[in-house]
Amino acid sequence: MVRYKAIIAYDGTNFNGFQRQSTGRTVQEEVEKTITKMANQRVEIHGSGRTDAGVHALGQVIHFDFPYERPLEKMRFGLDTQTPDDVAVKSVEIVADDFHSRYLVKEKIYEFRVDIGKPRSPFRRFYASYFPYAVDVAKIERALPDFLGTHDFTSFCATGSSVEDKTRTIYEANVTVNEAGDELVFTFRGDGFLYKMIRIMVGTLLKIGNDRMPADSIPAIIAGKDRNLAGPTAHPEGLYLKEVRY
Amino acid sequence: MVRYKAIIAYDGTNFNGFQRQSTGRTVQEEVEKTITKMANQRVEIHGSGRTDAGVHALGQVIHFDFPYERPLEKMRFGLDTQTPDDVAVKSVEIVADDFHSRYLVKEKIYEFRVDIGKPRSPFRRFYASYFPYAVDVAKIERALPDFLGTHDFTSFCATGSSVEDKTRTIYEANVTVNEAGDELVFTFRGDGFLYKMIRIMVGTLLKIGNDRMPADSIPAIIAGKDRNLAGPTAHPEGLYLKEVRY
Repeated sequence: MVRYKAIIAYDGTNFNGFQRQSTGRTVQEEVEKTITKMANQRVEIHGSGRTDAGVHALGQVIHFDFPYERPLEKMRFGLDTQTPDDVAVKSVEIVADDFHSRYLVKEKIYEFRVDIGKPRSPFRRFYASYFPYAVDVAKIERALPDFLGTHDFTSFCATGSSVEDKTRTIYEANVTVNEAGDELVFTFRGDGFLYKMIRIMVGTLLKIGNDRMPADSIPAIIAGKDRNLAGPTAHPEGLYLKEVRY
Repeated sequence: MVRYKAIIAYDGTNFNGFQRQSTGRTVQEEVEKTITKMANQRVEIHGSGRTDAGVHALGQVIHFDFPYERPLEKMRFGLDTQTPDDVAVKSVEIVADDFHSRYLVKEKIYEFRVDIGKPRSPFRRFYASYFPYAVDVAKIERALPDFLGTHDFTSFCATGSSVEDKTRTIYEANVTVNEAGDELVFTFRGDGFLYKMIRIMVGTLLKIGNDRMPADSIPAIIAGKDRNLAGPTAHPEGLYLKEVRY
């Protein structure tokens, strides 16, 4: 068996998330189907983590064990062309047998795109969350650094999550506005993120940008360890898993 | 009756083109349905021209006669929110009764996007044509100015077009490469374009960029007045009607 690591991108619009489910089309299932056919035997893939329905990936990392070694570009091209059009295989490499796409993650980078144009762009309806209200970007920029560092992010975790330790470290948190002034792009880099954490962070930041919450609210929300203190959960179509680092 | 001019954008992916057809969903039909409901009487719209199935618009212009005057932003917002999600109404204004969205066109600007990345981006599969071969952009830049000026573009018109005068003037023809180096964006500005003209021009330019046709071929192709001399017709999903000027 040869262990392969692959970087894949997918348009999450028509997927019920990354991970195999009892119902709905999933990325895992589609990719496994392709590799299993190629290997002529059942192959399971492991992702760096789940992504929810509608969430996209620019750089999800998977690993799998293949029965024999294949030239890398042949492997990449074969996987890329045989997976459905909404999945792309960007690169493939052979890794040590103890490489694990989930256990060994050091950092993850997520991007969150918000369409703030009027009207909403038909081209971004599946690729950015829409925020039709006024946004003061300076207020968001004031609030963002308060997320940096190591904190218990209970307030920014969807209730019902079974994870016990909700302490995470955020290394980078910023926002940019595109040239046309009609799209915000948030970037978050951290050692890991809780369930729906980025979407709750963005929902809270938009509330601050819209002046319905003071720009210095984040430290108290974090300290309160209560999901009810934070803002709403932003929609999944704006979220992209951009990069996973090991 | 009050004549309104509106600028609309649409994602052409799920439309059988702009103009009403015996079969398939069309932009004209969807927008007319909305305005007719709003007016409580049958209203017909007129576009600056057709766009084919799969072709997009960032700035298609339409006009229509509405039974009474409505505040502009109310009109725009009402149309925008009541049309389907793949159509956006960007602006609305009242124009003179003799304004006509098609007859009075002075210039049209089209954009054509080509995904040249490996692999093809799943996010651009409906929004850019894919060209998986090597492209020498310098060769395309060498060829582009040969389209400028007034010419009989018979060689760049789909056979079967019923237009008699195939003389058109092109004012601007250029190409840019995006920062990531994986997308070409062509821009063409002219007094009008023949049926599939941009797509044949782009198909020919890509053939030149791929070194399967000399970079100085365009003048002879134009002079030959024969569709068979030009390259293939590029796919519709890369084409955007960007702006119409009056």
